[in-house]
Amino acid sequence: MGGDYAPAEPVAGAVLAAREFDAIDLQLVGQESAIRAALATAGGEGLLASGRLSIVHTDEVIGMEEHAASAARSKPNSSMVVATRLAKKDKADACVTAGHSGAAMAAALFTLGRIRSVERPALAVLFPTIDGCCIILDVGANTDCRPTYLAQFAVMGETYARIVLGLERPRVGLLSNGEEDTKGSQLTIEAHKLLRGLELNFIGNVEGKDIPAALADVVVTDGFSGNVALKMAEGMFKLTFDLVRREAKRSILTQLGGALMRPAFLGVRKHVHYEEYGGAILLGVEGVAIVAHGRSSARAIRSAIRVAMQCAQGGIVDRIRGGIAAGSTTPVST
Amino acid sequence: MGGDYAPAEPVAGAVLAAREFDAIDLQLVGQESAIRAALATAGGEGLLASGRLSIVHTDEVIGMEEHAASAARSKPNSSMVVATRLAKKDKADACVTAGHSGAAMAAALFTLGRIRSVERPALAVLFPTIDGCCIILDVGANTDCRPTYLAQFAVMGETYARIVLGLERPRVGLLSNGEEDTKGSQLTIEAHKLLRGLELNFIGNVEGKDIPAALADVVVTDGFSGNVALKMAEGMFKLTFDLVRREAKRSILTQLGGALMRPAFLGVRKHVHYEEYGGAILLGVEGVAIVAHGRSSARAIRSAIRVAMQCAQGGIVDRIRGGIAAGSTTPVST
Repeated sequence: MGGDYAPAEPVAGAVLAAREFDAIDLQLVGQESAIRAALATAGGEGLLASGRLSIVHTDEVIGMEEHAASAARSKPNSSMVVATRLAKKDKADACVTAGHSGAAMAAALFTLGRIRSVERPALAVLFPTIDGCCIILDVGANTDCRPTYLAQFAVMGETYARIVLGLERPRVGLLSNGEEDTKGSQLTIEAHKLLRGLELNFIGNVEGKDIPAALADVVVTDGFSGNVALKMAEGMFKLTFDLVRREAKRSILTQLGGALMRPAFLGVRKHVHYEEYGGAILLGVEGVAIVAHGRSSARAIRSAIRVAMQCAQGGIVDRIRGGIAAGSTTPVST
Repeated sequence: MGGDYAPAEPVAGAVLAAREFDAIDLQLVGQESAIRAALATAGGEGLLASGRLSIVHTDEVIGMEEHAASAARSKPNSSMVVATRLAKKDKADACVTAGHSGAAMAAALFTLGRIRSVERPALAVLFPTIDGCCIILDVGANTDCRPTYLAQFAVMGETYARIVLGLERPRVGLLSNGEEDTKGSQLTIEAHKLLRGLELNFIGNVEGKDIPAALADVVVTDGFSGNVALKMAEGMFKLTFDLVRREAKRSILTQLGGALMRPAFLGVRKHVHYEEYGGAILLGVEGVAIVAHGRSSARAIRSAIRVAMQCAQGGIVDRIRGGIAAGSTTPVST
């Protein structure tokens, strides 16, 4: 029920996913009448009849303007919290929401709980690169980090990369302000040493420009810098297209060129569009919780469900638990 | 003598600047014979004869692979350090270099010294936006910052914006991971409070995507996040163009469109190209020190000289000294 286009787009996305992915059944959590209407529009009534889709009714909804942590705590019957609880109680293998991101993270933390040896769960995204995509984490769950958090982010991100990118040996980079080992903040210089000690394909420091250039499959950073980098990328992509549009208007020939180029521009937009990349995942909690973009279209929801399915099938929680336990980081109980 | 194309491009840039800016004379610091040869190539011999250009001979050069601080200290006769010393001794009003950035910052710090009340000098760049450009600082001089540093960066960046952007009341934003006042790291939350207390047009937190969108004229951040953001912008711009090029190859029509669009693409590149923006400036030192890009072309050097001229004419050092003294930040002697 959350997000800008609920319940129409989430429901339509669930219909797409149910049709495409035979291995899964889907539970739609929210106001039953609204969901039924959206299902009718999306042509998904047959899936309801066959049991591939089912509805878990609840009336409460967390609004986009509410305070994240208190909404997640004070609204146990909101569609988001109910969906998360299903994933906790083994009534679901994963949950997906396009609602209030902060509340979704809080709901996942409170309801699923963090994996015992994980110091801080981290929010990870799939980021478009020239080759395909890479994983960046943390992008906003932890603004202030300790070096050990970053070492654990590396382990969690690497596990996620193996599962969703299908890589045998993902290249893990540490985001810094220079490539040399000695470059960085106090945080990254210490984290660099810890990462060197892990059983990972650690390729050293990477810079902001190395992310789109696909130099790493997993980019580890604190949630502040990760968020800044992610939003700068978004802004710079928009700026580039806005400038192209403006410059193209200067002559008839460039306008014509722009019209002919339209399929290419659409191809570029599709390549970098979050719709293809399945939202963010909170790694380090006892379950699979996907936080899709608030403006998620049906296609974006379908991609988020695909990632949720891959993570559940891949046993991501157990693998992260094992990876953290095997890692040489010494978690400080906090 | 520094940078990838020295001395040819720096000398050619000096010739461009001498022709364009009547108000200034230029001293070229480096190996006299090499500079004379470059001047001949650039057609600048007449400027030498008329005294608009002169040569300050020195043989030593700091290589791009040397250690920044030790090179700046151990090579007092390098072209970079000699040029900086001229600016210290009032034999020059400003110095410009395209050499080793780290060494240039170190040379400026050691030779010019920091303004007494400034806790930490900061590296500021002009960043292209949809409207023109904004100033980001710090972008790499200080990876670990205290809130008071950021408050001083705001004062220095605002002064720089008044001088080089010609703005009466520059909008100052604090880079964070959310727009709300309460969003951010411990550093930015504290800095936010300090900025609220300054006599500035402080517009609050800005996100990465707000920078290209021109929501602020001055963006204040620590040198780590600033560097990450800057390099991510560079990488994302390159990615966008690389993707457009790749997508355009998919059909004859899009290829034709791309050919017709060429002037528009060149216009976009020019708009965001560092050549137009005059390099970085180390603010908070007792003089005007411009650190141009290592790959600076003649045009980039000319832009850097223009910024140097504006800063010297605008009395930036005295204005920063006054601004910091008037500010409500309480500098901690370090």
